[in-house]
Amino acid sequence: IPKSIPALAKNPLTPEKIQLGKMLFFDPRLSASGVISCNTCHNMGLALVDLQEASIGHGWQKGGRNAPTLLNTRFNLVHFWEGRGEDLAEQALDPVQGAMRMNNTPQRVVATLKSLPQYVEMFEKIFGGDPRLGDPVTFENVGYALEAFVATLITPNARFDQYLRGDENALTAQEKEGLEFFIDKGCATCHKGMNLGGTEYKPFGLVEKPGADLLPPGDKGRYAVTKTASDKFVFKVPSLRNVELTPPYFHSGQVWGLRDAVEVMGVVQIGVTMNEGEMDKITAFLRTLTGEQPKVEFPILPPNTDATPRPTPGITAEKAVGKYK
Amino acid sequence: IPKSIPALAKNPLTPEKIQLGKMLFFDPRLSASGVISCNTCHNMGLALVDLQEASIGHGWQKGGRNAPTLLNTRFNLVHFWEGRGEDLAEQALDPVQGAMRMNNTPQRVVATLKSLPQYVEMFEKIFGGDPRLGDPVTFENVGYALEAFVATLITPNARFDQYLRGDENALTAQEKEGLEFFIDKGCATCHKGMNLGGTEYKPFGLVEKPGADLLPPGDKGRYAVTKTASDKFVFKVPSLRNVELTPPYFHSGQVWGLRDAVEVMGVVQIGVTMNEGEMDKITAFLRTLTGEQPKVEFPILPPNTDATPRPTPGITAEKAVGKYK
Repeated sequence: IPKSIPALAKNPLTPEKIQLGKMLFFDPRLSASGVISCNTCHNMGLALVDLQEASIGHGWQKGGRNAPTLLNTRFNLVHFWEGRGEDLAEQALDPVQGAMRMNNTPQRVVATLKSLPQYVEMFEKIFGGDPRLGDPVTFENVGYALEAFVATLITPNARFDQYLRGDENALTAQEKEGLEFFIDKGCATCHKGMNLGGTEYKPFGLVEKPGADLLPPGDKGRYAVTKTASDKFVFKVPSLRNVELTPPYFHSGQVWGLRDAVEVMGVVQIGVTMNEGEMDKITAFLRTLTGEQPKVEFPILPPNTDATPRPTPGITAEKAVGKYK
Repeated sequence: IPKSIPALAKNPLTPEKIQLGKMLFFDPRLSASGVISCNTCHNMGLALVDLQEASIGHGWQKGGRNAPTLLNTRFNLVHFWEGRGEDLAEQALDPVQGAMRMNNTPQRVVATLKSLPQYVEMFEKIFGGDPRLGDPVTFENVGYALEAFVATLITPNARFDQYLRGDENALTAQEKEGLEFFIDKGCATCHKGMNLGGTEYKPFGLVEKPGADLLPPGDKGRYAVTKTASDKFVFKVPSLRNVELTPPYFHSGQVWGLRDAVEVMGVVQIGVTMNEGEMDKITAFLRTLTGEQPKVEFPILPPNTDATPRPTPGITAEKAVGKYK
């Protein structure tokens, strides 16, 4: 993980855009109810997760999958558990519309933003200027601003990074042995690259199919995107960065202990039975992947005006069915 | 409002205690569900309110009353809409236990804190040291830490304060006329003192009883505390500090426009019919009560351990009845 924030290829990072994205990230008025913000499920103080099996969203509905952290997510090549988002900007707009998440519509989000002069001014300054592009207050630009903020959420200087940079003392002997096991046992075959994961999809149960609690039969993973039989129960290989901070584990969120998760992976993905000492050492190594957590000032949000749409915390049946869950 | 933070009489403010209080304020693990923190209903970015008619709490239950801001609340003499809290520390612990708020128990809060070594260390440092006082990780001390943090949430330098300090140009001619009306019409009879309110209770409907939408018959206000007939429909006179930031208005949260709220007050509390210009001027004056909003860094919270109680977002019937609503 780099120590400073790298540029984004398609979305130039500016301090103004990052600030706008931060405000939108914390603003519960992005949800229909006015109760839920991005920070509700991706908590800035909790490694950008919510420590829930599956997130509680609009109407106290429990979602189908565990919320992944947004830390270092920009270094992932694939997003969501089944890879339905093209990039972070698209990812960011998905939960805003999900009936079980924030239950909002692009039209209502834009109406809310347009009722708040401070936001309008920021959108104009950041995205305006070229009349061919039309009105700068768009749902798409909400995505770009959120992507810009989320792109700043990186965790440099994990002890593993210090070790990679040549500091032999950054890891203990036990952790170094854990790293060796991590490579030798085959974990690193999938959990590879800067994020130790986040680069590809794999069937959950490569060697042995997990039980229905860990792999609910109703959630077929990437098959929902590709409709290809071989993609049934295929999910993203998640990053292991900061993994000790982000229980519970797997897309189903049913395993709370990190060491238990290591054991499950050994059995279902690799087909090895590890002894206690091996699992302890791998777990110890995984704890060296925790980096410096980003610190942000809580943004002061624009006050409501008479034109701001009122919160609508009710649940409507027609929104509660559909592609989101 | 003073420019620097005054001491509390019974709860010495230290940087460590304020920091602990801030962490607890933002920690959703204070709720049974692990979803709701103090910041959910008292949003740091939204003048410590949630812009809801009544707060949405545990199980998406809608509470009975509008959430008051915590800004400058330390300068109030009475707390809650009907004055059931003795001080801020007691106030802070009430919603943690409310079945429609955070739905937690003191025992479970303490178990959660004891599972998180960083919190234990902080409690020991701040509240420990005297063995006669016993274990420093107590629910009561959670209240003192929260009180210490909330005591820092003050909004100095409102334009009205600048005017009071002698800057004649801090208010426009219209706002000064509004201030005169505010005093002459009788608003200042109840909305008095440093917070322009927060010092006493008054019947809502002193002159004319409001309709059932503004004054729901089921909520008898201070009568619930005192059981005295004359306290039926008696509520706290709320502070008007930052009032433009905190719609909707009144304990029932049914009036969204500040000018509409002024009109209601004129009719039901004072018994005057004001003309448009008078109401506009009073409203303009009220907008000068907005001070500098406190800025805080979002605290990094201690990671879960294997001993941390799991979130329990379910609703149990026996908790859902009782004194809280």
